[in-house]
Amino acid sequence: MEDECKPMLNTGLRGVVIADTRISDVQGAAGKLIYRGYLIQDLANNATFEEVAFLLLFEKLPNPSELKAFKNQLAAERDIPQELIAALKTRPKDALVMDVLQAGVSLLANHDPDITDQSQEAAVRMAIRLIAQFPTLLAAWDRIRNDKKPLKPSPKLDHAANFLYMLKGEEPDEEESHFMDVCLVLHAEHSFNASTFAAREVASTRAHMYASVGAAVGSLSGELHGGANMRVMEMLKKIGSVDKVEAYVNEQFDAGRVIFGLGHAVYDTDDPRAHILSPMSKRMGERIGETKWYEMSQLLENTGKDEFHKRKGKDIYVNVDFYSASLYYAMGIPIDLFTPVFAISRVSGWTAHVIEEYFAGAAPKPMLYRPESEYVGDYCGPDVCELEPLEDRG
Amino acid sequence: MEDECKPMLNTGLRGVVIADTRISDVQGAAGKLIYRGYLIQDLANNATFEEVAFLLLFEKLPNPSELKAFKNQLAAERDIPQELIAALKTRPKDALVMDVLQAGVSLLANHDPDITDQSQEAAVRMAIRLIAQFPTLLAAWDRIRNDKKPLKPSPKLDHAANFLYMLKGEEPDEEESHFMDVCLVLHAEHSFNASTFAAREVASTRAHMYASVGAAVGSLSGELHGGANMRVMEMLKKIGSVDKVEAYVNEQFDAGRVIFGLGHAVYDTDDPRAHILSPMSKRMGERIGETKWYEMSQLLENTGKDEFHKRKGKDIYVNVDFYSASLYYAMGIPIDLFTPVFAISRVSGWTAHVIEEYFAGAAPKPMLYRPESEYVGDYCGPDVCELEPLEDRG
Repeated sequence: MEDECKPMLNTGLRGVVIADTRISDVQGAAGKLIYRGYLIQDLANNATFEEVAFLLLFEKLPNPSELKAFKNQLAAERDIPQELIAALKTRPKDALVMDVLQAGVSLLANHDPDITDQSQEAAVRMAIRLIAQFPTLLAAWDRIRNDKKPLKPSPKLDHAANFLYMLKGEEPDEEESHFMDVCLVLHAEHSFNASTFAAREVASTRAHMYASVGAAVGSLSGELHGGANMRVMEMLKKIGSVDKVEAYVNEQFDAGRVIFGLGHAVYDTDDPRAHILSPMSKRMGERIGETKWYEMSQLLENTGKDEFHKRKGKDIYVNVDFYSASLYYAMGIPIDLFTPVFAISRVSGWTAHVIEEYFAGAAPKPMLYRPESEYVGDYCGPDVCELEPLEDRG
Repeated sequence: MEDECKPMLNTGLRGVVIADTRISDVQGAAGKLIYRGYLIQDLANNATFEEVAFLLLFEKLPNPSELKAFKNQLAAERDIPQELIAALKTRPKDALVMDVLQAGVSLLANHDPDITDQSQEAAVRMAIRLIAQFPTLLAAWDRIRNDKKPLKPSPKLDHAANFLYMLKGEEPDEEESHFMDVCLVLHAEHSFNASTFAAREVASTRAHMYASVGAAVGSLSGELHGGANMRVMEMLKKIGSVDKVEAYVNEQFDAGRVIFGLGHAVYDTDDPRAHILSPMSKRMGERIGETKWYEMSQLLENTGKDEFHKRKGKDIYVNVDFYSASLYYAMGIPIDLFTPVFAISRVSGWTAHVIEEYFAGAAPKPMLYRPESEYVGDYCGPDVCELEPLEDRG
């Protein structure tokens, strides 16, 4: 087996094409993100999260009656069992939210009647339940940890608006609902990113939908992946004001540290999603009468880019986490919910990928991800280490 | 990026060397499994699980005083919080055990004081807690679902014996404890298998130890990975008696189906662990006066191998799951605990790999696993699909 393919070791499979997919296309050089043939800009401007989730799961945009049925189905599956609320109530109030979400996914599995059904129809039903229940789970935990009663989902509200309602206890207006909806559209899917790859990897063993999505939630929690949007906001708060941005940029680069939200594993241009988020962040700041975070972000972007170019002779670009931070903050979302909000969108992409991993025509034979590694440890000589009895070990 | 390396698409990274490791070496052609320089046979014959876990975490076998300290540390960390017991009590009794275990890992994270500490020392402490607490969590759940009170761990018992005690409510004798201990040694580590790769993948985003191990548990639950040992036992029970083995083998191969426990992603010989498990399965069967399952396994191995060779002109070999099934069954372990028992051993390997992923000298720069995929879906023409307004969609 040693001859087949040896990508550069320890480079995180960067640039290595491992599978084909019909779900999305990330054209890093061109800065294009495409969900099932549609440009992200077109989707953000003209489709709701429900339409996008349908597109990801069913490979086409819904017509009006399909959309109506799908929205009804999602709304009908939003509620979470009382036993799950009871489990959440046992949790320490300072639990990391992503850990509660990861636990919650596995706990939801206990209540799904399809859990041992390996058919494609069952996988789709489980996907729809997960997409429907993520916002309820997250909002319930945020209220429980703040000693508030979790709210029942409101069937008359769309997905994004209902999430904000369950989180804050009041219905958002149209503009705020729309902004949240656009965020969910933008974050829904991004090909073989680390969390999606984790979901597919787990699904490749024929583990079920929840086991796979649980892994993805774990992966998203890392600060090099979804956790970055929290880090951006923590950074903005640490800097504190517009006049301190420039010094901060220099400090970071002097120390060889990164600036969260700048740089991406895949894009060689600005992340197309950042340009959609930026004006929403500005507008939301205006709405609450506090544009500081947006202004700091803008200056940080410009200064960071200039300084990076000056120092390294190459360019660095903003990614999706950069402006989502100040936007969510202006929407009143607690900072430690930023990554979980990413998750309630991305679960649509994860579940689509799990279904593709199970059933795609391209890989009809089950084939789990099982790479090789190169052993560079000891052998204590030419063969293997001799095992000394415990008493003789120094 | 497209030129770098293109392994065969959709082949699960089989044969693709992606990283170096100092933890274990699987020599598939030679049928050798080596943990940090030591042959698995030597470890199984001469070292306990505690020694092996120390070896995996600290890169050397412990001397007597190190072993004593490590065993004390493990014993001191065995207990699980009452709040976790309370969470388990909210679960439906028919929950899949691997789902409870995956949830349990994330729930344990909520109680770990080191959870936000990114130092190597903290990672090692979290690893030791997870290794210590997995058996307690699993035994507690098995007792709760059977309406029994979970038992406190017994500090005077070793790791394997204490697990059997907490599970069954009585202390095992020396031979049974030893057999369980050998099983834990055999299952502790196997390089970049699917669950370990999942753990490393999640850790590569700088997600914490529990998030990473939770993903691994999900991956292990799949029937193409750890779930296979349950499938082996279900198969044996379905066949029912020795005289029906031959017909079953033919039936399976005629229908193009696999025989669980035969075949492995990596070995081109018998799995070295199977030869250690087989005599233990025989002896345990004799102890309980029921050798049928062992005899069926033996005949199934021989008939399966012969028939496969006859039909395909090539060889197939037994893997680790094959004899562990009848062995665990004879030990009175419920079938749906077979894969979780695998997990309480493998957590030692997972945690060692997570620590290597975070801190190994070979990859000092954080580098998350982020492979590429090839988009083979629609573009609706040369460029991208045009987004029709909802009303116009047919």
